[in-house]
Amino acid sequence: VAERKSQIVLGLDPDPDALWPGSEASSERRGGPAERAGRAVLWHCRAVIDATAEACVAVKLQLARFELLGAAGWAVLESVAEHARLRGLLVIADGKRGDIDVSAQAYAGALVAGRDTPFGRLEGLGADLVTVNPLMGIDAIEPFVTTARAGGAGVLILVRTSNPGAADIEDLRVEGGGAVWERVAAIVAELGAAGVGKAGISDVGAVVGATEPAHLERARELMSKATFLLPGVGTQGGRVEDLAPAFAPGRAGGLITASRSIANAHEATGGEPAVSARAEAERLRATAWALSDRVPAAG
Amino acid sequence: VAERKSQIVLGLDPDPDALWPGSEASSERRGGPAERAGRAVLWHCRAVIDATAEACVAVKLQLARFELLGAAGWAVLESVAEHARLRGLLVIADGKRGDIDVSAQAYAGALVAGRDTPFGRLEGLGADLVTVNPLMGIDAIEPFVTTARAGGAGVLILVRTSNPGAADIEDLRVEGGGAVWERVAAIVAELGAAGVGKAGISDVGAVVGATEPAHLERARELMSKATFLLPGVGTQGGRVEDLAPAFAPGRAGGLITASRSIANAHEATGGEPAVSARAEAERLRATAWALSDRVPAAG
Repeated sequence: VAERKSQIVLGLDPDPDALWPGSEASSERRGGPAERAGRAVLWHCRAVIDATAEACVAVKLQLARFELLGAAGWAVLESVAEHARLRGLLVIADGKRGDIDVSAQAYAGALVAGRDTPFGRLEGLGADLVTVNPLMGIDAIEPFVTTARAGGAGVLILVRTSNPGAADIEDLRVEGGGAVWERVAAIVAELGAAGVGKAGISDVGAVVGATEPAHLERARELMSKATFLLPGVGTQGGRVEDLAPAFAPGRAGGLITASRSIANAHEATGGEPAVSARAEAERLRATAWALSDRVPAAG
Repeated sequence: VAERKSQIVLGLDPDPDALWPGSEASSERRGGPAERAGRAVLWHCRAVIDATAEACVAVKLQLARFELLGAAGWAVLESVAEHARLRGLLVIADGKRGDIDVSAQAYAGALVAGRDTPFGRLEGLGADLVTVNPLMGIDAIEPFVTTARAGGAGVLILVRTSNPGAADIEDLRVEGGGAVWERVAAIVAELGAAGVGKAGISDVGAVVGATEPAHLERARELMSKATFLLPGVGTQGGRVEDLAPAFAPGRAGGLITASRSIANAHEATGGEPAVSARAEAERLRATAWALSDRVPAAG
């Protein structure tokens, strides 16, 4: 964050029905629909990365969109991650996985660290951060934390998401006080305590929707060292200006993710998609950087 | 279930370190580690299916294990699903996905129904049932229900899982009464009401761990029409004999999933893996079928 003076995460959520013009040219008639769509998605993702990388610190890859393309999509996912790394960006694998221990270990291998097998080393996606669904409890989260920590990566646990449905389960009030999401926040703080680095920030972070700024201060109280991944800015209605509490532990305390509001910026502004995307990413970057400058760093 | 006289779901959870003997032969040195591991995993999965299919009604594919192999793994996943279908088995995609609306739609396309795109039709995995994580609420679940229902498939929502960590969040007591998992159960009943078929069973089912039989009766009260997918028998300690409440709405009210206890049965019994697996699957089938015979069907 310090090096790139950016807290902006480029969300890549490629809809095969809404790729940037130029994508089709790469999808020449060779191969089946998945291969052709895959080449177009890869072209699109590279173009969006190239347009906006200077204003961003990371990409967030929405795994659902790549899975839709099957095996071809997974290959594209790996290529997009590699392209992002070449542009100096961290890679966030947004799969929101969560499963029992052995399955969680397999997911962590797939997305973060790879694994040695009798057939040789499986490389995995090599993500720097991975989103994790905490519903199944601590024993389903720990394999991700352990694997990520061993490899210098981190996890982002869903605490209070940005969608309206978050109210259905995450906001339920629990006997003894607080909401379900606040109990998850306590787990984030607990699992993250052993992973606080030199900058005062833990390798166990939290996904906290930018759509409900009222929750942010409370989330920061409960998770003083966690990086918050903040979805919901733009299309979903959240505003960067409301996110100040995220930056209490330092400038890397908040990572603001924007997907459609960057890739589809030209729909509002007109003109070249790349030019509009770059301008929107830079606008978000400058706004967030200025905001985080006004927040005194703790500790 | 009626046709195959079985409620047994073969869980395929292939660990590249513990495949059946014979798998290695298929992994000749052509290709990289992922391709070689992929061929061995495919050989293994086909062999386990061939050994046990007659005693089973479905396979449950643990997506984590296939993702670990990257693009090669996704291709293997598709081949295993196809092989299972050829053996007359339903396919359960066990990915426990859950995400905001557009992402949930993409997952539902990837795993269940495919999708039309400007590049042609993406086929998707074509699963008959897909496991869904409900943490993010109804708007994250509905795209799966809608997509599955339109295509004659169904969803299985995580209600009360079989791992010890289920106590951390799922068992939290909620103000106004009940546990978090009971609120999820109410959502299952609500979303499933419009999808009850001729047999009196809904296309919205529930994952209810077999490790805590005390929860089963309460789960059945709350979800009278839901099929329960019951993991946790065998390696995790659950017993078929304790699962009678699952069958209250009929013989298809409970689907008992067993993974390692079938594939690794030879470790306890000695002898050929295929022979031991077939015997264990048949033992489970006969036990469950006899148990469900003693439960009077409701309605």
